[in-house]
Amino acid sequence: MEKLINDPTAYVDEMLDGMVAARPELRRLDGTEVVVRADGPADGQVAVVSGGGSGHEPSHAGYVGEGMLAGAAAGAVFTSPTADQLAAMIESADAGAGVLCVVKNYEGDVMNFDTGAEMAGMEGVDVAQVVVDDDVAVEDSLYTSGRRGVCGTVLVHKCAGAKAATGADLDEVTRVAEKAVENVGTMGVALTSCVTPEKGEPTFELGEDEIELGIGIHGEPGVERTDAMSADEVADTLLDEVLDDLGIESGEEVVTIVNGMGGTPLSELYIVQRRVAERLGEEGVDVHDAWVGDYMTSLDMEGCSVTVCRVDDELKELLAAPAETPALTVRE
Amino acid sequence: MEKLINDPTAYVDEMLDGMVAARPELRRLDGTEVVVRADGPADGQVAVVSGGGSGHEPSHAGYVGEGMLAGAAAGAVFTSPTADQLAAMIESADAGAGVLCVVKNYEGDVMNFDTGAEMAGMEGVDVAQVVVDDDVAVEDSLYTSGRRGVCGTVLVHKCAGAKAATGADLDEVTRVAEKAVENVGTMGVALTSCVTPEKGEPTFELGEDEIELGIGIHGEPGVERTDAMSADEVADTLLDEVLDDLGIESGEEVVTIVNGMGGTPLSELYIVQRRVAERLGEEGVDVHDAWVGDYMTSLDMEGCSVTVCRVDDELKELLAAPAETPALTVRE
Repeated sequence: MEKLINDPTAYVDEMLDGMVAARPELRRLDGTEVVVRADGPADGQVAVVSGGGSGHEPSHAGYVGEGMLAGAAAGAVFTSPTADQLAAMIESADAGAGVLCVVKNYEGDVMNFDTGAEMAGMEGVDVAQVVVDDDVAVEDSLYTSGRRGVCGTVLVHKCAGAKAATGADLDEVTRVAEKAVENVGTMGVALTSCVTPEKGEPTFELGEDEIELGIGIHGEPGVERTDAMSADEVADTLLDEVLDDLGIESGEEVVTIVNGMGGTPLSELYIVQRRVAERLGEEGVDVHDAWVGDYMTSLDMEGCSVTVCRVDDELKELLAAPAETPALTVRE
Repeated sequence: MEKLINDPTAYVDEMLDGMVAARPELRRLDGTEVVVRADGPADGQVAVVSGGGSGHEPSHAGYVGEGMLAGAAAGAVFTSPTADQLAAMIESADAGAGVLCVVKNYEGDVMNFDTGAEMAGMEGVDVAQVVVDDDVAVEDSLYTSGRRGVCGTVLVHKCAGAKAATGADLDEVTRVAEKAVENVGTMGVALTSCVTPEKGEPTFELGEDEIELGIGIHGEPGVERTDAMSADEVADTLLDEVLDDLGIESGEEVVTIVNGMGGTPLSELYIVQRRVAERLGEEGVDVHDAWVGDYMTSLDMEGCSVTVCRVDDELKELLAAPAETPALTVRE
């Protein structure tokens, strides 16, 4: 299976070098796989940071920049960053107002962020954490106790980063991050397996006419392997689960994401988006904004996820605040 | 081969519906596959429009919006839009200052844009055209006489759209579009074939360890089928051809695009970007800006293209001007 890589063991290093080569406003923290803002932490503001295994690009380094993250740590593919690197990121990002870590709920990430935060805390940094667990598909999975953290994490980055940019204190930034977490749900589907650089082969087998509902972003098992469905059936299935889980009712207002898993063309995502918008219209749910694209991927997996976030005036304002990062730009 | 589609014959229609559902600032021109700005043509400004076969998303409807295109017409997959639809688009987009059509050099597109422009001209619209032929790989190919128009087209959209937004007249907007065309070159590579919705199977066969250099964006033949290469070798090969063709020399300034073909994850594009930036640095070429992502795709094809555009102060200013479209946002 031919890929655009050199040495599989240099995959993360070269990818991060490519990103900072393209974006001079970002830089790598020396000797780490951490990407931070080249202009340093914004003076006196809370720094929002994140991280996780690689293979989910543009997550998370693609969200470093004005109005979103102050830093992102990349582990090896599908592997948590080390506690040392997380501690270095947290210490480097602190501008004197404390650091909020946005952590996807995977055991390795949670453990290493805990240790990294503790290490940074011993250096005098005020650290808070929020754990994102938006995947409604499964409770307790291969790498988690509780639910997995997936694409909804990007909305948490946006809300927390925008709040930090207002000069709010760590408690306030943490509060809006938690508010976003409480109101967001996601479910995904795989049409194909992903291929990891090291292995060079599909990580799991899926028949030509099979799909896997509730897939994780590392190819870990979902809730059901089923026959091929139309795009509308996929959209309905994912959306129903998410709406039901969040208890979204007619008259409520939401932001949606139709997210590609990395190998799915944008045209197909728009076909799914069409049905998501149609269904929400039928349900009387007001769509404040709809994002369509690759936000939280699984290498070259074909498939998508559907995210719904209930929004109030505060979250809407934070989502609409200016941002400038490699993967998301929002104008005033 | 499972895909996120419903009826293959509704592919384009549903995709465009999904796009306008996500972006209320866009709308479809009634009874057509044309996407235009919902707020209508900008009064007194030249309208820049484009179009072509579907399957290249986000091209072209993804570039409709403030600072770029006033309209984009989508044909069936890999098929030119009809002259009737192009005429309807041109007439609808005209705000009294004339319309510039940006056309990729494919025989069907050129012929239908010619006819559409003539039809609109008979209705009193002042129409100009520029034909983009940036693909340095082949002269005269399966669907073209002369070179093919590929990813460089997006830079032409940006420059022409930004110039139109300044209130410049049709001659001036056409001049900057032609300047961009003269200074841009692109070459691509396929690692896999694409799968068209109608056929549901690869359009050509490529061995597991083969790649095709100089591929067209419809899977039409390139210049050489060769054994697998590393990402760096791919980057070197594509970049050398483009730099040589443009005659770029040390000390010149360029904007680059590492463009994904639709099925390639962003991580791999960044690995290619790393080498492109490194090589240009070695050559003493100054990279003013570097775009990395899916701009001109070929359905779900895995692969990439490398675009280089020589820029002067005028093109730099136009590329940096504000824009707000589904696929590209530029802040002030």
